[in-house]
Amino acid sequence: MFDSVAFIGLGAMGYRMAAHLPAHIANVMVWNRTFEKAQQHAIEYGTQAVSLQDAVQADVIISCLPTSEDVQKLLDQIQPKAGSIWIDCTSGEPDQAKPIAARLAAHQVQYLDAPVSGQTIGAQNATLTFMVGGDHTTFLQAQPLLQHMGQLIQYVGESGAGFAVKAINNMLLAVNLCAVAEGFTTLKAHGVSLPDALKCINASSGKSMVTETVLPQRILNREFPLTFALPLLAKDTGIAMKLVHQAKLAAPVLAQTQMMIQAAHLTAQPDSDFSAAVKMYEQWSKITLE
Amino acid sequence: MFDSVAFIGLGAMGYRMAAHLPAHIANVMVWNRTFEKAQQHAIEYGTQAVSLQDAVQADVIISCLPTSEDVQKLLDQIQPKAGSIWIDCTSGEPDQAKPIAARLAAHQVQYLDAPVSGQTIGAQNATLTFMVGGDHTTFLQAQPLLQHMGQLIQYVGESGAGFAVKAINNMLLAVNLCAVAEGFTTLKAHGVSLPDALKCINASSGKSMVTETVLPQRILNREFPLTFALPLLAKDTGIAMKLVHQAKLAAPVLAQTQMMIQAAHLTAQPDSDFSAAVKMYEQWSKITLE
Amino acid sequence: MFDSVAFIGLGAMGYRMAAHLPAHIANVMVWNRTFEKAQQHAIEYGTQAVSLQDAVQADVIISCLPTSEDVQKLLDQIQPKAGSIWIDCTSGEPDQAKPIAARLAAHQVQYLDAPVSGQTIGAQNATLTFMVGGDHTTFLQAQPLLQHMGQLIQYVGESGAGFAVKAINNMLLAVNLCAVAEGFTTLKAHGVSLPDALKCINASSGKSMVTETVLPQRILNREFPLTFALPLLAKDTGIAMKLVHQAKLAAPVLAQTQMMIQAAHLTAQPDSDFSAAVKMYEQWSKITLE
Amino acid sequence: MFDSVAFIGLGAMGYRMAAHLPAHIANVMVWNRTFEKAQQHAIEYGTQAVSLQDAVQADVIISCLPTSEDVQKLLDQIQPKAGSIWIDCTSGEPDQAKPIAARLAAHQVQYLDAPVSGQTIGAQNATLTFMVGGDHTTFLQAQPLLQHMGQLIQYVGESGAGFAVKAINNMLLAVNLCAVAEGFTTLKAHGVSLPDALKCINASSGKSMVTETVLPQRILNREFPLTFALPLLAKDTGIAMKLVHQAKLAAPVLAQTQMMIQAAHLTAQPDSDFSAAVKMYEQWSKITLE
Repeated sequence: MFDSVAFIGLGAMGYRMAAHLPAHIANVMVWNRTFEKAQQHAIEYGTQAVSLQDAVQADVIISCLPTSEDVQKLLDQIQPKAGSIWIDCTSGEPDQAKPIAARLAAHQVQYLDAPVSGQTIGAQNATLTFMVGGDHTTFLQAQPLLQHMGQLIQYVGESGAGFAVKAINNMLLAVNLCAVAEGFTTLKAHGVSLPDALKCINASSGKSMVTETVLPQRILNREFPLTFALPLLAKDTGIAMKLVHQAKLAAPVLAQTQMMIQAAHLTAQPDSDFSAAVKMYEQWSKITLE
Repeated sequence: MFDSVAFIGLGAMGYRMAAHLPAHIANVMVWNRTFEKAQQHAIEYGTQAVSLQDAVQADVIISCLPTSEDVQKLLDQIQPKAGSIWIDCTSGEPDQAKPIAARLAAHQVQYLDAPVSGQTIGAQNATLTFMVGGDHTTFLQAQPLLQHMGQLIQYVGESGAGFAVKAINNMLLAVNLCAVAEGFTTLKAHGVSLPDALKCINASSGKSMVTETVLPQRILNREFPLTFALPLLAKDTGIAMKLVHQAKLAAPVLAQTQMMIQAAHLTAQPDSDFSAAVKMYEQWSKITLE
Repeated sequence: MFDSVAFIGLGAMGYRMAAHLPAHIANVMVWNRTFEKAQQHAIEYGTQAVSLQDAVQADVIISCLPTSEDVQKLLDQIQPKAGSIWIDCTSGEPDQAKPIAARLAAHQVQYLDAPVSGQTIGAQNATLTFMVGGDHTTFLQAQPLLQHMGQLIQYVGESGAGFAVKAINNMLLAVNLCAVAEGFTTLKAHGVSLPDALKCINASSGKSMVTETVLPQRILNREFPLTFALPLLAKDTGIAMKLVHQAKLAAPVLAQTQMMIQAAHLTAQPDSDFSAAVKMYEQWSKITLE
Repeated sequence: MFDSVAFIGLGAMGYRMAAHLPAHIANVMVWNRTFEKAQQHAIEYGTQAVSLQDAVQADVIISCLPTSEDVQKLLDQIQPKAGSIWIDCTSGEPDQAKPIAARLAAHQVQYLDAPVSGQTIGAQNATLTFMVGGDHTTFLQAQPLLQHMGQLIQYVGESGAGFAVKAINNMLLAVNLCAVAEGFTTLKAHGVSLPDALKCINASSGKSMVTETVLPQRILNREFPLTFALPLLAKDTGIAMKLVHQAKLAAPVLAQTQMMIQAAHLTAQPDSDFSAAVKMYEQWSKITLE
């Protein structure tokens, strides 16, 4: 096991993920751009709030930032320790994984792309799914550490593969979000009770994570709690489409979904939860999904 | 309870559904256009193969035909018994439910649209979902009978509401089928192992009935067992779009999906299972989902 | 030639079309639901404002109403003269043409579906295009009369064919409207001068009626003059999609366009010109097409 | 005027474009990867077939290659002359224009992106449209030279703007190609004569370059002459979508079109003309556009 782990990026996910580490690791350092958050984490969970330069001297660095561009900017400022492992939980760009890995390899640092799924509740309960790309031996070294924060720690292929699986997963979430909004609006327009329809669909072949949790827990109750921001879902669908374009494939339903999520994001309130994408459809139809 | 029930239409679903009735009902009659099937059912399950004219003298008639048009044609030929209940398990057209109900009401027959979900395995195990539209009192009378063939027997609204929920359910199935085909083709093009990706997605927010059962049990194993024919899914997505158009809504992801399923159907082998819709994408990409 | 012609429906198109007839026909009757319009037309152009019952005693009746449903309602109220010809310039429903023709045939009246293209300016200058479906001999009789109001009087096939061509024409207009809105928004986002880009495209393979007239004369100048209402274009794209669905075809770009025009219509101001559909894209992008 | 001009890339377009220069320029050099083509051009038009190193010593270099990547590879091999102008008629990538301009600026060479529209017939008759991006003073210097090969020589903005306008133009061509294929298939399915429908639409608001020239001259006559290859149109629609994604816009009809062109390209014969994209729709519908 590792003596020291540094966690970089204490957002809604990272803050909760890092909280599990002190129970297993002697020296858990945390760093965040808004440094008060790191200090608060230290008080709350017994981690150490340190400078960025100190953080990158850890045996393992875990980063959890909004975009791959943010990771690249971070790398401009630091000198990581040779022999360490960098685990990047950002929902990043697959075609950035190899360039980032190469930059770190120049410092003798191994890089894993290891984005997560499971939202803040999964981060809190250590039930996240980690989709990991990179060197397989490094993965085996990192796996026990990730197990402290997640349930399924899955190796999916070479550098960038983790980011790719995450992007497609979130695209499938987006597809269901749009399709459910469109389908349930149609049912309500025809006088069908949405809770009754939902019971049927959740016992049938049309069910998905969106019908099982997003629709009842976020939309029908009109709560739209901000745990995964709509602009981030828009970003992820964009990453998925980039994968489609790079492979020169035809993916019409994904392309269509990306456009709808993009339109929903462009017309949404700032700080909207991803589930609020349905509000675009509600504005179109004057039908409220409740 | 009812003394006599007639089951009309012994296709892949009806044959299995009717098999559960003799355990609970004294007189179970069956009729099928290809009459040998009815005779075989009688031998196998102790039902009675009868003429269509006799069948419609039952207390309850259950029909399970390919389309609402087939139901209309059947009604041209018969004189149902006053006071009976007609339960139509066809995946029918919502805007045909009221005209059919009116035709039957002229004979003092109550009509319920009660399409099912759960496929042949659900028909066999009596775990189907019934989505029922029509008069609520009639629903309450029919419910115990339907319970012999299903798990969830759900009332969803007035005449046509059952067909509407079924159409939207199957549209959501179609959306996931297309999106999963597109997404997994993209992942394979980028070198990701599909079984590993599937494990991640089934533990994440992108999961759906398609990722949980259709992809592993029909597609990745290259079996495509014919239990629900692609032309029927194409028909159902067409019904869903008709609901959208009638309500003058904008449903771009559903519209797109309908077109892809239609194109897949137009280019598929006859007697293709709905899961074989992915083969259109495979022909486009030269990538096999396995 | 005909002694008497009645023009029914003096909207933006009909008012201007009927104005050309008195120069060629002895007895030109006009009728309009808001009867003042008919009286004004009589004063302005020397036609006769008559009752609906009198109008349908003419040798030829020309109708120009918003929808086929309006034509059907009109037929409920009248008793047309045997031996007359009914020319329906409504942008109607192809599958309504044969039922309407049958209703009129019961009165020994021949029916032609003869929708027009060319907008109010074409109506005013008698340069409209007439797309005519129905009996060919009747077409040959009607052609000289239509020539007073149009330039190209084209027979396109049996009853309903005229409506079908009109619906597809307007769908192609809608496709270009959406695509031009999307494309020019993109160019402006990248800093390109729209008038300069327009010059290039109008000299190139991307040109269409939308780039040649709609964009410069209605959109870039921000005038959006109401000559063809957005709800009517939405209706016409719906008719086109019905043709697609009836023929069980896959037409993804048309389906997509219909959804965008529908969404634009649902969010537009009342009394919007069709060209104002671009405002939906402008709201999305915060980029004004000027 | 310039004493020497070198033309690099004698494909279907370049070969015809370069043929106009000897009438106006003393020293016209040509170079092509398959050098026999350059030698043949010299014999046919009095140009000089030279080595690549000699070509780039000209006062003006005109390149006309398949992709921006080809231009970048060419730049790897050469040392252009300080003070010269490089006019790039490739249908290139907007986001490659500035990097290429920067590489050439390091040699004191001015770069204009100047893609053309008008197809081989326009190249032959010197009626091309040039859409030019880059430094405006350089444009004014280059304009008289381009005028020998084209009709409209239009400045559209800074470096990359020419490529952007070309990509959007070709996207609009693609939109019309798909929409016309879908629309005319629908008309034929309903029994309408396509030549008659085409006459109406070309006199109406649905007309476009595709209805005016592509459909009658390439498709309905079943000739599909190879003058602009389908993979190049697929590439151009991909460039247009990249512009959409970079600007974070929602352009659903363009996205849909790109996917259809991509699918048509993936399933087409090699060496298909762009107009052969309609064959995908013909395979779907079993309806031939003739």
